[in-house]
Amino acid sequence: MLFERVAVIGVGLIGGSFALALKAAGACAHVVGTGRNPANVKLALERGIIDSIAADAVAAAHGADLVLVAAPVAQFPKIFKDISSVLNPKTVVTDGGSTKRDVIAAAKSGLGRKIAQFVPAHPIAGAEKSGASAASAELFRGKRVILTPLAENTDSSVRKVEAAWSACGARISRMAAEAHDALLAAVSHLPHLLAYALVHEIAARENSAELFAFAASGFRDFTRIASSHPEMWRDICVANRDHLLQELKAYERELGSIRKLLEAGDAAGLEKLFAEARAARDKWIPSS
Amino acid sequence: MLFERVAVIGVGLIGGSFALALKAAGACAHVVGTGRNPANVKLALERGIIDSIAADAVAAAHGADLVLVAAPVAQFPKIFKDISSVLNPKTVVTDGGSTKRDVIAAAKSGLGRKIAQFVPAHPIAGAEKSGASAASAELFRGKRVILTPLAENTDSSVRKVEAAWSACGARISRMAAEAHDALLAAVSHLPHLLAYALVHEIAARENSAELFAFAASGFRDFTRIASSHPEMWRDICVANRDHLLQELKAYERELGSIRKLLEAGDAAGLEKLFAEARAARDKWIPSS
Repeated sequence: MLFERVAVIGVGLIGGSFALALKAAGACAHVVGTGRNPANVKLALERGIIDSIAADAVAAAHGADLVLVAAPVAQFPKIFKDISSVLNPKTVVTDGGSTKRDVIAAAKSGLGRKIAQFVPAHPIAGAEKSGASAASAELFRGKRVILTPLAENTDSSVRKVEAAWSACGARISRMAAEAHDALLAAVSHLPHLLAYALVHEIAARENSAELFAFAASGFRDFTRIASSHPEMWRDICVANRDHLLQELKAYERELGSIRKLLEAGDAAGLEKLFAEARAARDKWIPSS
Repeated sequence: MLFERVAVIGVGLIGGSFALALKAAGACAHVVGTGRNPANVKLALERGIIDSIAADAVAAAHGADLVLVAAPVAQFPKIFKDISSVLNPKTVVTDGGSTKRDVIAAAKSGLGRKIAQFVPAHPIAGAEKSGASAASAELFRGKRVILTPLAENTDSSVRKVEAAWSACGARISRMAAEAHDALLAAVSHLPHLLAYALVHEIAARENSAELFAFAASGFRDFTRIASSHPEMWRDICVANRDHLLQELKAYERELGSIRKLLEAGDAAGLEKLFAEARAARDKWIPSS
């Protein structure tokens, strides 16, 4: 048994799946959950995702030896501030936020001297579904979790948090928060923005009904991530604005180059670009 | 039995699936196939996709009462010219090209007075896989096929071609070639270009291996169509260049608006845009 009492603050897709996975692994005795949506927290209890409901983050964290903060990132500053006073010296805290620099800033401000107990994590296992109803013990299996440990962390704290995510079946990597945010801007945050942009642009047209009627599986898969949670993605975009803007500009430059190939009717140039992209993707796919 | 002898010129994903679907429906007695890749045509024979191999398009079309031209579109001018002299007066010809104005121009030039026998079609049922090995009798089931009949077509020719695609399980629509090309530029051709662009841009970076290592399911689905056939998409882009450029520019404007929201840190504006996109997509998905 790794943990006696686990507190999950925000029992959505990530928080709920974390609880289910730890239970399935026999890694915890009791999970207490809390969240801002009472119906969702009640559903989590009914589904056996959590064993009890706490009124708020403070009540949840009280007496817990592991705390997962998995609420929308905009709520993190208040949550860290609230739970700071009730954390035992041996309690470790981790999170499920998709950006790390802003989460760390919120934790430093809210936790104060207890910042050493917080080991930031990003499970790369989102889905366009959200809420306790979408939670699954298998969500993290074989998926990557990036830890961005702090200089203040003890080895023991990092090991405990790593053990929790490992128990969920995840593959653990470690890197600096800055490197994490730069990396994710390129391979996750930008694609989300691009998918939202395409659907938004099409939906605004007079003939959007006809356009959607003839959109097929390519469009469906390309835009799957445009069904992601708007509030979550707002927070990610704002928190990682600098890296995301850099990625967006690089992409706009790439589109400009392709537009020039098109304008010039450069068939060979287009084919070369498409072939290079396909080769790179096909090389990646077997290992993904 | 709708057809005695069906000729499939280009036994790839589309041509092979058309043959398999007609056979499964009991709609044809004999399928003769031809293509530029001998190994692929041989595989088609071995898999029972075709019943015999013809040396070239002329030999295949000879005596056929239905001809499907499903080669890469760049080969269409030569194919139409070649088969023109052997088409019986009652033979109907259709195609599987993703663009229609260029195909019609090639057919008018190649078929001459026999243009009335050609009923253009676009089965919207691609996949990133290609070749006879990927062919399936189920590829077109429930999928849309757009016919863009010509002023020269007789009702009887259009009905025969419609019956063939219907036998494959497809849902048939009719529209003008110009409207088809404009529609597909928005919902198919542009997304392919955008997916190729993202993979190409990432693959060209020094740290591309690390970037791909942390790319997850969102990236995988967004870029699925970047594994499409480069030669085919080169031809589509060149053939539909005017509409595609218009779509690309509209998308670049949309990205410019989003960039401004990001630069301004306009969280509410970003959330509104994301929410509108998600609502439009979620409304579409149940019917797609």
